[in-house]
Amino acid sequence: MPHSGDLDLETFRAEGRRLVDWIARYLEGVEQLPVLARVRPGEVRAALPPSPPARAEALETILADVDRVIVPGLTHWNHPGFFAYFANSSPTPAILGEMLTATFNVNAMLWKTSPAATELEITVLDWLRQMTGLPEGLFGVIQDSASAATLVGLAAAREAVPGLDVRRRGLVGQARLRMYASDQAHSSVEKAGIVLGIGQEGLRKVPVDSEFRMEPRALAVAIAEDRAAGWTPFAVTATVGTTSTTSIDPVSAIADVCARERLWLHVDAAYTGSAAVVPELRGLLQGCERADSLVMNPHKWLFVPVDLSAFYTRRPEVVKAAFSLMPEYLRTAEEAVAPNLMDYGVSLGRRFRALKLWMVIRSFGHEGLAARIREHVRLAQVFRGWVEEDPAFEMMAPTPLSVVCFRWRGDGLSGPDADRANEKILDSVNLSGDAYLSHTKLSGRIVLRLAIGNIRTEERHIKKAWEQIKNAVGQVNR
Amino acid sequence: MPHSGDLDLETFRAEGRRLVDWIARYLEGVEQLPVLARVRPGEVRAALPPSPPARAEALETILADVDRVIVPGLTHWNHPGFFAYFANSSPTPAILGEMLTATFNVNAMLWKTSPAATELEITVLDWLRQMTGLPEGLFGVIQDSASAATLVGLAAAREAVPGLDVRRRGLVGQARLRMYASDQAHSSVEKAGIVLGIGQEGLRKVPVDSEFRMEPRALAVAIAEDRAAGWTPFAVTATVGTTSTTSIDPVSAIADVCARERLWLHVDAAYTGSAAVVPELRGLLQGCERADSLVMNPHKWLFVPVDLSAFYTRRPEVVKAAFSLMPEYLRTAEEAVAPNLMDYGVSLGRRFRALKLWMVIRSFGHEGLAARIREHVRLAQVFRGWVEEDPAFEMMAPTPLSVVCFRWRGDGLSGPDADRANEKILDSVNLSGDAYLSHTKLSGRIVLRLAIGNIRTEERHIKKAWEQIKNAVGQVNR
Repeated sequence: MPHSGDLDLETFRAEGRRLVDWIARYLEGVEQLPVLARVRPGEVRAALPPSPPARAEALETILADVDRVIVPGLTHWNHPGFFAYFANSSPTPAILGEMLTATFNVNAMLWKTSPAATELEITVLDWLRQMTGLPEGLFGVIQDSASAATLVGLAAAREAVPGLDVRRRGLVGQARLRMYASDQAHSSVEKAGIVLGIGQEGLRKVPVDSEFRMEPRALAVAIAEDRAAGWTPFAVTATVGTTSTTSIDPVSAIADVCARERLWLHVDAAYTGSAAVVPELRGLLQGCERADSLVMNPHKWLFVPVDLSAFYTRRPEVVKAAFSLMPEYLRTAEEAVAPNLMDYGVSLGRRFRALKLWMVIRSFGHEGLAARIREHVRLAQVFRGWVEEDPAFEMMAPTPLSVVCFRWRGDGLSGPDADRANEKILDSVNLSGDAYLSHTKLSGRIVLRLAIGNIRTEERHIKKAWEQIKNAVGQVNR
Repeated sequence: MPHSGDLDLETFRAEGRRLVDWIARYLEGVEQLPVLARVRPGEVRAALPPSPPARAEALETILADVDRVIVPGLTHWNHPGFFAYFANSSPTPAILGEMLTATFNVNAMLWKTSPAATELEITVLDWLRQMTGLPEGLFGVIQDSASAATLVGLAAAREAVPGLDVRRRGLVGQARLRMYASDQAHSSVEKAGIVLGIGQEGLRKVPVDSEFRMEPRALAVAIAEDRAAGWTPFAVTATVGTTSTTSIDPVSAIADVCARERLWLHVDAAYTGSAAVVPELRGLLQGCERADSLVMNPHKWLFVPVDLSAFYTRRPEVVKAAFSLMPEYLRTAEEAVAPNLMDYGVSLGRRFRALKLWMVIRSFGHEGLAARIREHVRLAQVFRGWVEEDPAFEMMAPTPLSVVCFRWRGDGLSGPDADRANEKILDSVNLSGDAYLSHTKLSGRIVLRLAIGNIRTEERHIKKAWEQIKNAVGQVNR
């Protein structure tokens, strides 16, 4: 064989070192790359062989293709000018953590199949719970994404409805279940409803106030109306940090409604949860201690690479009742005394995801993580100040954290024309290669969205983005 | 700060090299470690600080804890004596691939958020399709696990039922859906039924023949009975390689039934799919070209670390209809011409998983992969031969691939006593530290299960396991 493909560890030592150098060079130079990929659809695929190689190829050949095809075809999420969606990060300790996860390649499905993976997961999720000020006694388990975690939370909510036994009997012939979330809630809530057989009609979207927060009174009214109409309300998802504007639903008031109506309260704190590691921002999670289930995403703003979503619940026995299936071939002597984490989600196979979170928390320390998030929040306020000082622009939502929603006023253009102008501004900035922003729609109007979350983002990067936005206005306005 | 935690790339170069050396030493020495972890429940957790560190710690401190706490607490899936469940592998090119995935940390949710991740995923899944002899025109997308892929396939099946519109209306008040799988099918089929709101009663388990394969005639009878009783049959899951015995359902005959009855055919080839890269084993997937959806797991037997499950479908438009939700903030200009892979599953956030599969296929070549799988099948036949030659043992199932199901006859012991003796043999071998086997139950009896799949497993490792099994008999029999 021309190349070991595997077992020659001397070759691995050489290749591994070469790749570490390659990675360091990539991270050093990523700021010089265009943040948004400039390829056209199909271009990457056309540059790759249509069929697999029959024989082994050397790593240097593969790495040459990474340079030639992959890197130019990527949108660089690790670029400090990445301001789209929710910016995330892959700091070097996390890369080292993923190296170890791949090396061990354990499956954390059963305690027995990897005690350390199971117990590190429990430990590190308890660390995260402590750092974010959530109450003791919560059961934490890692899911791959917030979408999966929300599915798990709402499946448990469905299982908790008295008298249904959905697990065994399914939904046909049962009461018509309905759940609630604000009209700003993440699409994963609606997707969970579809998957769970509740259907889109089983999700009622509750209106929000002028700052995009769910109206608890409107929630109570909706529940009363639905009960009168024969629906069986069963769950509410409160969002702490919506995707459009990072608005924060009034969780305490929603929890009051849930307590009164005996509904499961799921909290989507995917983005905001990380911010609660900053002591003075802990109040953001106020009321969340009353949630039945809650998700936060260290892979969003806690400097852990995708994927790692932290799911917490006060009622692990219900989650287990909704999901646990134990075939004979997975039975172990330890199952009575040690948790098998496959019991708390859809997937049986589970990566050793806790390792990277553990390495990130230790490499930064709680204070180091808080300092970086605090700085991101400061940068967002700085950017917001620039927008507010410029009469050509207007703020479109509050900025409780690190996402700024704003727009160019349009200089006398009509509504649709001003929308198109804002889209052109966005495209122009994104084509520059220095910054990548995304958009949203609020009250029917196109809004520009600058999301700060990459660990390498400094004030000079948002300064440059702001200058490019202003330049783009000049071009659009000609 | 005592330690950068991130940005100092000179430190990363040094730490990365040190970790590459650590990994090489681990892989060199893994065979000397006990394959099954020897810790007691709670021991790992007790060895870790109950609270997170306030300040940054150095990598060497963290790595010292990996050596002190994590490694002794792991069951070593990368050990050549790992014969439990389905053995998997993390060869060095895959570790390098995961390093790159963590470095780029792109989210392959939309084409635009990472064109190269999306197009490499499509390309490499087409390579895998070609290598396994599946027909052209299949749409392939990566899911995290076979459980998730089976959920996706069966959600699409549910969506495809005419006149229901489950996505919008949900299941309440609809026809009573029922699906089918053999009584040997993986628990993920039942779990998908629970999640989808079909319920456990919505899955009918079809009997198997003496070699643990679904009886197509029994399937047809079950469907007819159910239709007469008012059920609406909608899907069949055929298993190509069951978890207990790797038995292979007669897919062609099952596909005939599905065609006649207009049912969605989902194929679970999680384990066996990889074997079809061996040209002379391609026949294992016979009939699968007629599946509506199919899953195979490169993270099982194609030397790719968890997680990476390949989902194929002939009807991507149905999968998309079941799952796609496009909020304004994710709309892009390219969505009409380039696929957004988040439309084909539960999770919106998606790791760049294709990279490791691409690197493994290229580092081994199709022929290299086939050679290793062929060798595993040969080793299983060798082991089977030893069992068959020894009158104290009996084979309990055919060995079509690399899993051997056998048991000690019991030397005159009663059924339950013989079962207990086999459990003791298993425990004894697993305590040795040289091998880790798991068990199953067939026709009510405890069966030992030796699964070959780790890339480092050689004949000497199965020889040693066989000797230990025979020694254990001597001890149990005293």
